[in-house]
Amino acid sequence: MPFTIKKTLPLLACFTTTMAAPAAENTTYIPRNYGVLLYRAYDFQDVMGPLEILYGISTTHQTNLFLLASTLEPVLTEPRMPEMNPLKSSVYPRVLPTHTFADAPELDVLIIPGGPGMRAPDDLLEAELKYIKDTYPKVKNIITVCTGSALLARTGLLDGKRATTNKTSWKGVIHYGPLTKWVSPARWVVDGNIWTAAGVTAGFDIMFAFIKAHYPDGQALVDTWSKSIEYVPHEDSSWDPFSAMNEIEPQNQL
Amino acid sequence: MPFTIKKTLPLLACFTTTMAAPAAENTTYIPRNYGVLLYRAYDFQDVMGPLEILYGISTTHQTNLFLLASTLEPVLTEPRMPEMNPLKSSVYPRVLPTHTFADAPELDVLIIPGGPGMRAPDDLLEAELKYIKDTYPKVKNIITVCTGSALLARTGLLDGKRATTNKTSWKGVIHYGPLTKWVSPARWVVDGNIWTAAGVTAGFDIMFAFIKAHYPDGQALVDTWSKSIEYVPHEDSSWDPFSAMNEIEPQNQL
Repeated sequence: MPFTIKKTLPLLACFTTTMAAPAAENTTYIPRNYGVLLYRAYDFQDVMGPLEILYGISTTHQTNLFLLASTLEPVLTEPRMPEMNPLKSSVYPRVLPTHTFADAPELDVLIIPGGPGMRAPDDLLEAELKYIKDTYPKVKNIITVCTGSALLARTGLLDGKRATTNKTSWKGVIHYGPLTKWVSPARWVVDGNIWTAAGVTAGFDIMFAFIKAHYPDGQALVDTWSKSIEYVPHEDSSWDPFSAMNEIEPQNQL
Repeated sequence: MPFTIKKTLPLLACFTTTMAAPAAENTTYIPRNYGVLLYRAYDFQDVMGPLEILYGISTTHQTNLFLLASTLEPVLTEPRMPEMNPLKSSVYPRVLPTHTFADAPELDVLIIPGGPGMRAPDDLLEAELKYIKDTYPKVKNIITVCTGSALLARTGLLDGKRATTNKTSWKGVIHYGPLTKWVSPARWVVDGNIWTAAGVTAGFDIMFAFIKAHYPDGQALVDTWSKSIEYVPHEDSSWDPFSAMNEIEPQNQL
């Protein structure tokens, strides 16, 4: 039977008439080279939300994804500490990096996922924190998802900046950035060229917002690919019922 | 600094007072061993939605995940056909299987993701279709996500059954199951022990519904882990704005 490209070319964009459409930001570049920082006990869903959207984008905008880690060995997603996997469950897929930090190509965008591994001591994250710090001046944007903002805060790059994180992990994250203006409620926050998302599935929303802001056909791409993955994006960056659920006071709103 | 287990043990379950709570189904077993069928050009998000939820479940219910493929080589997610990746984008991570079909352990639940690879000719999917057909009598449940229902339909196991799929890919899927009662609108459909989800992110909703139906503390697990991943589950299996967007007539409703 013939292959078709139906899945990559949906028929119509349908969200424009039913969803709020904030004014598009001015764009000066179209992102092409995305890198993802992998580290022991990162959360692959934090990567996969943005990546699922990039699959679609990549059919009309040439896109490269680089999965970066300290070595080319498969990066384990299982937490190091036995008490985080008390029943010795085996639910941790192994994903292969494409490059090491040492031979990573130049990036437009660095994506930093969260996950329990972000709490590891400095000496276990030395290579990752150094790569983030060294790379930031060379990239056009950084995007963090979930507790990935804790890793970024640990480099000092969030000092004085507004940022957010997973609200269930709020207290476990904000102490890593005592000089950061942590925002609640927030689905995502943009400060300069740093975009930080709330927990896990906020990775879909921040990526759709990023696409809209950075691609000349951004709104059409959002409409097409949100329909394709059957997701209704939250287009309001302050949508966040989880702050109240976690009893986090509103703070650092603009 | 100390590790904590905050992320795996959120403080409170908060959805019960704000979301509809359908009556729980009677449960006769607690799933423990989940297998995922991997094949060339599957969609990893279709796997990752259910898996992200199982991470949480696995901290209080011992859970095993087996990633099954025809060989132990990394399974490529890139489509085979050049016209499905016209710009030669490289956005395709490689995930390592844990077992081959030949040495797969016994499963409680087989999860079948969708993706463009489900359209491959029979000879390229021979091992996968045979494994599904041979394994169905031995598992307690099958869950498909997105166009994974097309693979299941191709085995004949959906003949006479109600099922659903991604609505953007509707026409490209339903011809694989001419004897299947394809349901629209539907976020997910349950027929006997076969659970079929709509497109991509419906994988979160079907998994939450499955957890609720099969674990004695199902509702509490749903409340806790939906909050943790900052997702508001669609608890109504008929919620589906995408059928109308794709101009699919309502059909095969109960």
